[in-house]
Amino acid sequence: MDAISVIRTKRDRGELSPEQIDWVIDAYTRGEVADYQMAALNMAILLNGMNRTEIARWTAAMIASGERMNFDSLSRPTSDKHSTGGVGDKITLPLAPLVAACGAAVPQLSGRGLGHTGGTLDKLESIPGWRALLSNEEMLHVLDTTGAVICAAGDGLAPADKKLYALRDVTGTVEAIPLIASSIMSKKIAEGTGSLVLDVKVGTGAFMKTIEDARELASTMVALGTDSGVKTVALLTDMSTPLGLTAGNALEVRESVEVLAGGGPADVVELTVALAREMLEAAGIKDADPAKALADGSAMDVWRRMIAAQGGDPDAALPVAREQHVVTAPASGVLTRLDAYDVGIAAWRLGAGRARKEDPVQAGAGVELHAKPGDTVTTGQPLLTLHTDTPEKFDYALKSLEGAFDVAPAGTAFTPNPIVLDRIA
Amino acid sequence: MDAISVIRTKRDRGELSPEQIDWVIDAYTRGEVADYQMAALNMAILLNGMNRTEIARWTAAMIASGERMNFDSLSRPTSDKHSTGGVGDKITLPLAPLVAACGAAVPQLSGRGLGHTGGTLDKLESIPGWRALLSNEEMLHVLDTTGAVICAAGDGLAPADKKLYALRDVTGTVEAIPLIASSIMSKKIAEGTGSLVLDVKVGTGAFMKTIEDARELASTMVALGTDSGVKTVALLTDMSTPLGLTAGNALEVRESVEVLAGGGPADVVELTVALAREMLEAAGIKDADPAKALADGSAMDVWRRMIAAQGGDPDAALPVAREQHVVTAPASGVLTRLDAYDVGIAAWRLGAGRARKEDPVQAGAGVELHAKPGDTVTTGQPLLTLHTDTPEKFDYALKSLEGAFDVAPAGTAFTPNPIVLDRIA
Repeated sequence: MDAISVIRTKRDRGELSPEQIDWVIDAYTRGEVADYQMAALNMAILLNGMNRTEIARWTAAMIASGERMNFDSLSRPTSDKHSTGGVGDKITLPLAPLVAACGAAVPQLSGRGLGHTGGTLDKLESIPGWRALLSNEEMLHVLDTTGAVICAAGDGLAPADKKLYALRDVTGTVEAIPLIASSIMSKKIAEGTGSLVLDVKVGTGAFMKTIEDARELASTMVALGTDSGVKTVALLTDMSTPLGLTAGNALEVRESVEVLAGGGPADVVELTVALAREMLEAAGIKDADPAKALADGSAMDVWRRMIAAQGGDPDAALPVAREQHVVTAPASGVLTRLDAYDVGIAAWRLGAGRARKEDPVQAGAGVELHAKPGDTVTTGQPLLTLHTDTPEKFDYALKSLEGAFDVAPAGTAFTPNPIVLDRIA
Repeated sequence: MDAISVIRTKRDRGELSPEQIDWVIDAYTRGEVADYQMAALNMAILLNGMNRTEIARWTAAMIASGERMNFDSLSRPTSDKHSTGGVGDKITLPLAPLVAACGAAVPQLSGRGLGHTGGTLDKLESIPGWRALLSNEEMLHVLDTTGAVICAAGDGLAPADKKLYALRDVTGTVEAIPLIASSIMSKKIAEGTGSLVLDVKVGTGAFMKTIEDARELASTMVALGTDSGVKTVALLTDMSTPLGLTAGNALEVRESVEVLAGGGPADVVELTVALAREMLEAAGIKDADPAKALADGSAMDVWRRMIAAQGGDPDAALPVAREQHVVTAPASGVLTRLDAYDVGIAAWRLGAGRARKEDPVQAGAGVELHAKPGDTVTTGQPLLTLHTDTPEKFDYALKSLEGAFDVAPAGTAFTPNPIVLDRIA
């Protein structure tokens, strides 16, 4: 077995054998296969695909690369959620404490920035003192005492995926259904959650641009989960425009806290509650009311305990970027389009994401929205505020916003996309 | 500019802009773009292609990454030859001293092992004491005093190509016309040769499997050379079976010395002389006779001086592998096929080539042929001898030889392929 022959098999549109898959995942984890070889293989997989048999084996090999956890010692049923990633998708932040407040245990092993979408850990790390890296014992302790934990997958859990995930992020190989499905499901199956709700994003700002691709990804993952004994449900949700009014790290934490305080943008609240209902149902918890848990402050209580248990100060001021630049409306009328991808790229270029896996992210960088599709705007009013510590990046970020939005004459009819587009179980 | 957006452009079948090409080549040379990013881009280029405009710019960017040499100070006209690489292709070794013996100056900047084909430098390094790395001054000195020099391209010459070449070798991205053409021509144009003969291999053991692909590669390179003022001619030559009777490092040096001594396999002699005639014509040298220079020992004299000038001992014993394994003929009859690719992979697996760019090669490893297509064989007679220092590799090498040859009943008609298939100028 050698890396080059595995790469050639997929490059030449062949099917990878179980032995090739097991070997390449194991050898990559051990460092025998180099990053540059895996990057070439990833691109070949992205362009030439993998069938369901290959994907199942790839997932199993990633699970086998590390340990498997279990939560049998907990008194509550576990439920986890995973989003395929979108612009402004901070839902995990309010959702995990909300579902915990309703009686489930939420072990939320999350990732860092992937492509133009932000990473949950990058966002939470903007809270002074907060630590993403917990030992398994610490993780179980936070989960047991607060009901929820959001942390990095431990080094022992699917280490192959950990390496691959960081590599894909910086090699333009994120948007491949086989790699996305196996990455997500290997972590979730190894993590040992009893049930799982998948939020599969669809639209310009998502990795899946079409509903067909999203369905393919969702059904691939639901099958992988079900075959491994994890109750798995997927919602397909809209990502044609950013979720909420912020895309960035500290900016999204601020908005999440607003939701937990009973406020926040309507779309963020709607999706948070819809996902909470799915998670509670999948966990077998019947009579909880997530909307009430947001309104009565019980979700916020869990948030504060959870942040504090990981060293964070829930009362600390969040970092603010050193420089701002305002984009104004070029005309008066109705904002009919504000493109999620373009905003995501702008936020990424401003410093909210990373160009190489070694790079740090800026806590304060990102994009703030002052209007959403359907809103009436007036010439010269602020439409977007760009935030960064490195103002030389404004020009490059602004370039990605050329053509990012449309303003139609006042009175133009506008029907917003529904948030939840489909459900696959 | 960032690596990911360049990768995405090509991944999504877009045309790379001149600015993207200039940036990515420069940033890769400086180390700002990582190996794993370039590997992903290379695979996207391999699978999605580049047009002539992109290839010309890519080549120019690689030339601009370093210095340009010139040989104006030499009294003789310069002529260089480049082979796209084949199994058992040791032609450079006898050819350079032969053409020098006929009056041209031959600055042969060569490479190391690329994929399953051997590298000229790897072969020569099996000669005790011989040094591939020369300063520009040393190179000019050897060239001026002996008429020929075979050495590594200096660090200053197309450094972008140097990095890329090593990377492609270990990432399954060798077989891409745009990358092959730009790699070869950037080095040759920067090197400053006055004329250039390309040996474009066609067949199972070559990177170009079909005559159409080979013509496309040849015409791409001839155009790149001509546009840059280098008189460039290409021969398309057969690579369906190994050249000569050896594939390996020291094994091929031994065979080359046989040719310089006036003997050696007929196909190696024929191709060496054909290429010598093209090089001499391209250099404007009319009345030389390469066949005579082989027969009268004058080519051998240049070889000995050239090897000695680079620290090598032309009289030293060549390294021999520690272990041998003989493959015998399974039946009596006519050998109608002995596949170049399978033999090349076997030699590579035995240790003649490298799996990672940091790996060393074994000087003695390789495959020795005891029969060629068209020869009559008898059941049980030796067909191939495998050589390696690491006998645990025999099984893996033998695997690549399953189905590598056909023996037809005695008396079966057999017409060998001509060596030279076409000429493009």
